[in-house]
Amino acid sequence: MTEAEFLVFLRTLPLHPGARMLADDTAALGRYTITTDTIVEGVHFLPDDPPGDIAWKLLATNLSDLAAKGAKPEGVLLNYPLSYSSWDTAFLEGLHRALDRFSVALLGGDTISLPNGAPRILTLTAIGAAGPAPPRSGAQPGDGLWVTGTIGDAGAGLTIALGARGPDALLERYRRPVPRLDEGRMLAPQVHAMMDVSDGLLIDAQRMAAASGIAVTIDLALIPISDDLALFRDDRIAAATAGDDYELLFAAIPATSPHAPATRIGTFSPGAGLTLIDGDTPVALPAQLGFEHHA
Amino acid sequence: MTEAEFLVFLRTLPLHPGARMLADDTAALGRYTITTDTIVEGVHFLPDDPPGDIAWKLLATNLSDLAAKGAKPEGVLLNYPLSYSSWDTAFLEGLHRALDRFSVALLGGDTISLPNGAPRILTLTAIGAAGPAPPRSGAQPGDGLWVTGTIGDAGAGLTIALGARGPDALLERYRRPVPRLDEGRMLAPQVHAMMDVSDGLLIDAQRMAAASGIAVTIDLALIPISDDLALFRDDRIAAATAGDDYELLFAAIPATSPHAPATRIGTFSPGAGLTLIDGDTPVALPAQLGFEHHA
Repeated sequence: MTEAEFLVFLRTLPLHPGARMLADDTAALGRYTITTDTIVEGVHFLPDDPPGDIAWKLLATNLSDLAAKGAKPEGVLLNYPLSYSSWDTAFLEGLHRALDRFSVALLGGDTISLPNGAPRILTLTAIGAAGPAPPRSGAQPGDGLWVTGTIGDAGAGLTIALGARGPDALLERYRRPVPRLDEGRMLAPQVHAMMDVSDGLLIDAQRMAAASGIAVTIDLALIPISDDLALFRDDRIAAATAGDDYELLFAAIPATSPHAPATRIGTFSPGAGLTLIDGDTPVALPAQLGFEHHA
Repeated sequence: MTEAEFLVFLRTLPLHPGARMLADDTAALGRYTITTDTIVEGVHFLPDDPPGDIAWKLLATNLSDLAAKGAKPEGVLLNYPLSYSSWDTAFLEGLHRALDRFSVALLGGDTISLPNGAPRILTLTAIGAAGPAPPRSGAQPGDGLWVTGTIGDAGAGLTIALGARGPDALLERYRRPVPRLDEGRMLAPQVHAMMDVSDGLLIDAQRMAAASGIAVTIDLALIPISDDLALFRDDRIAAATAGDDYELLFAAIPATSPHAPATRIGTFSPGAGLTLIDGDTPVALPAQLGFEHHA
């Protein structure tokens, strides 16, 4: 059974209306928005990554899903495998810093012991309060495509984490991303569709277009690039496919004046698929638009 | 860092009021009650256990925590490691049966891939709607201690699962427990404290007394034992320490006429600790009151 087959099978189970057919990153229950993520040592993080940064990123990536729904985080649950070592202390210290930074509190969780040699597996579930939450699927033909912040910094930060030389600011964006919570709450009432950029700008934009049943065109020249990244690596395709940005991607009518700083990078239109241009010049799609398996 | 030290450290993090200082099995958020459990292959289940039964039990044990708060299950989230095999199908079929049986729907979740050879780790989070939920800590001196159903069947079922000969009904109680959801909703308004029996009747009763800051005495002769169990094994201490019962344990004033079938097995009093009697005869506490580490 492949992951796609598993998802098809999952949709035959009794689904809550708030599950939105499992097509979004979050579920809705009453006035709450809920998201959960599991990360695995050797898959999502490396054994020698700083434990405090792993805690920060686990929290930040979940809160980023809430940000994309305009939700205010209320609490999180942590499912934690005890190491019985200083790893635990360092993890909790990092979690403490991140909970303080994002003004969110621990609601509960579960601790377990793993068999010897098993990779660490950590799950965090975040719950936020939201007004009407913009779906991923609401983009309409004629809408503009916007993105907050800058794209590609975290991808460059990963290459620095792996040994390349480069500015700490880029490494910081990889290790300790900051979810766009305030921006999400300000933007939610004025957008047709919103999601966070986790797997790569191109693949996530393609997913928004597909979920909305329309096409999208992105102008590479318009993608916002930080000064640090421009100096480190001048490659917009790499920036737009690297992922881990945790910026907000949204669709809104072209006349929108976004309530949070954002850059218009494309346009939705009838049809299907993703088209790239660079100013007036068509650009071939890269083989990889981002992380295909968020496994 | 031990599990106890970890818990102490956890309580220094910013805690949500609904976390109740992490002293209960559930958290409260608005009108919702939330619980989460992680189970690990080789720790909580065996590699050759039927996948459908693992799914059933994972759901049932979480719903049992909701039952103890009188909550009506609304939805669950599943964090699932893909096997890419028929194990996945069998697991989902079992989950489907259990969701149908307990009238609860899937809200969301996350799928991951594990490195080769890693033990399966499964997390389920269940959310229910509740009125005022009885805490574990509310027992008062003079209260009676009651338990629903019969105790020890699942413990005997485990010995049958491990090769002993015995009736299918006992094995069934181990493999496919039934959370006391209706009973919990009926009892919640009339009890001072309630929890489910997961680690063993004696240890869980001791925990309720400790959380309430008082003592409890249990009469072994009053513990309800099924006819199947009486024929299989005549050992009340084994029954009261085996765990996995998923019955409801509650404290209420002695004159209470419980709204769901239950047996009065003990009495709370000023002081501390657990005392056992068998009719008029004092009984020494066994070395193990149940599972000390719910790891």
